[in-house]
Amino acid sequence: MTKPAPARGVWPAASTPFRPDLSIDFDLYIAHCRALLKEGAHGLAALGTTSEANSLDLDERRHALEKLVAGGIPADKLLPGTGAPSIGDAVKLTKHAVDLGCRGVLLLPPYYYKGVSDDGLFAFVAEVIKRVNDPRLALYLYNFPGMSAIAWSPELIGRLIKEFPEVITGLKDSSGDVPYQNLLMERFPDFAVFPASEALLLDALKKGAAGCISASANVNAGPISKLYENWQGADIKGLNESVTAVRLTMQKFNAVAGVKAVLADRYKAPDWSRTRPPLVPLTAAQTKELLGELGKLEAGIAA
Amino acid sequence: MTKPAPARGVWPAASTPFRPDLSIDFDLYIAHCRALLKEGAHGLAALGTTSEANSLDLDERRHALEKLVAGGIPADKLLPGTGAPSIGDAVKLTKHAVDLGCRGVLLLPPYYYKGVSDDGLFAFVAEVIKRVNDPRLALYLYNFPGMSAIAWSPELIGRLIKEFPEVITGLKDSSGDVPYQNLLMERFPDFAVFPASEALLLDALKKGAAGCISASANVNAGPISKLYENWQGADIKGLNESVTAVRLTMQKFNAVAGVKAVLADRYKAPDWSRTRPPLVPLTAAQTKELLGELGKLEAGIAA
Repeated sequence: MTKPAPARGVWPAASTPFRPDLSIDFDLYIAHCRALLKEGAHGLAALGTTSEANSLDLDERRHALEKLVAGGIPADKLLPGTGAPSIGDAVKLTKHAVDLGCRGVLLLPPYYYKGVSDDGLFAFVAEVIKRVNDPRLALYLYNFPGMSAIAWSPELIGRLIKEFPEVITGLKDSSGDVPYQNLLMERFPDFAVFPASEALLLDALKKGAAGCISASANVNAGPISKLYENWQGADIKGLNESVTAVRLTMQKFNAVAGVKAVLADRYKAPDWSRTRPPLVPLTAAQTKELLGELGKLEAGIAA
Repeated sequence: MTKPAPARGVWPAASTPFRPDLSIDFDLYIAHCRALLKEGAHGLAALGTTSEANSLDLDERRHALEKLVAGGIPADKLLPGTGAPSIGDAVKLTKHAVDLGCRGVLLLPPYYYKGVSDDGLFAFVAEVIKRVNDPRLALYLYNFPGMSAIAWSPELIGRLIKEFPEVITGLKDSSGDVPYQNLLMERFPDFAVFPASEALLLDALKKGAAGCISASANVNAGPISKLYENWQGADIKGLNESVTAVRLTMQKFNAVAGVKAVLADRYKAPDWSRTRPPLVPLTAAQTKELLGELGKLEAGIAA
């Protein structure tokens, strides 16, 4: 058994629907994940921030992955988040994902303690890799300082790549920090960098990005995937503008709740709008505003 | 079975020692916890931030509590941290602590998502209480915005006390925000407020505080407990000054690593200085500086 090929393309950060008792609605979940792949997504970054993974307990996170695979989602199209504040839990989640055959795992830094050193973060990742101890492990660092309050510095990434070249495969960047993304692509040409926003995708691809892992790809997977597939085409400007416009509209609202509001409308399934505490759904007014703005964009594109 | 009496007094945030393979060293751990109680501590806030609880996996957190009780620490002298980013994991840890007979639990807010609303936090706590569903549950809110990046606002605390008067018992405040502490004590007279610093203890007791839950009480439990017991005494000024001086010295260093450096020296057990990634131990130079400063304070008190 060997390491899977690095992920490339558009990987929506698949949203997780909940029933009234807050348990995962697997019918809606699997149907949505299948729809995303059918629309053209190259894979699914399940169980990330948009997926409310950190609002699922550890058993649920493992169970959710198993249900997706049992529901027909190929494991090699899954790039789940397996981060946890403790080494032990991160190892358990990562081992489980590797055993399931997932394409790789997205690892948050241990996000409880703040102001931790690069030495401490290096030791954390090294210990996780040592304990997982599996040649199939492909690890993607998950950079989201807005949530974790801890960033993967280019220096630390360089140390990790040097020490674990077979394991450290890429990074998802949710910071929106373009110079940071460019620096990583320049300094580590074989490292798969995924911006979190499709608004940055076209420029990033020109600099060697692997694709994007996006929250709003939950609601716009087809056009974003088309943008990825055809980015070198002469007539890409219009598609890039419309993809960017949808993204910028989505960004005016809470990412998790906004995606769910759109999916509730699109699938005619009000349950989709439910979030788990501590997150709250959009208000009715916000939902109306968001759907109205998206509707106008669609009409503009159709016109 | 009824709810335990509210905690009062000095509850050190008991530190957790690790073996070279990073597993918990239960011999050192139990001996330390027993020593703290013998020195006069009124109970132990085990498995908090200073205890590196969020660097333990969920199984370890439960196991650690069981080992303490089996090791002779009365369960009603334990106030463990049971917070987790997900409702499910917070419920599992809280149920376990209640079933073990713990005095109460210290609950962090769900600390992954940032910028969450009071409504979302209220829903989180309400769901935890509903699922634990046990009249023995005494819940202490753990306010540490420096780590969790989320604070329990006085308005939210008021809502929680009103909705769950039998459950919401108190709060540990690690923000060091004296006006916030004073406001809580004034507005909620029956609510047990514990500053995290013994430097604030004497003034806080005058305003109705329940005691303190302190990291540095790991290394100074005797004098702090004496301060608590005798705070209304006429000759308390000198003791207050020396307790404060030790605290201010400890505060110059990382709280977790600093406590461990002192315990390694005091117990002649170098293993005590070990931390779990992402935290790192003090350097040799820092350790020397800290021990030197504490030595000078001790000599000054003895003189």
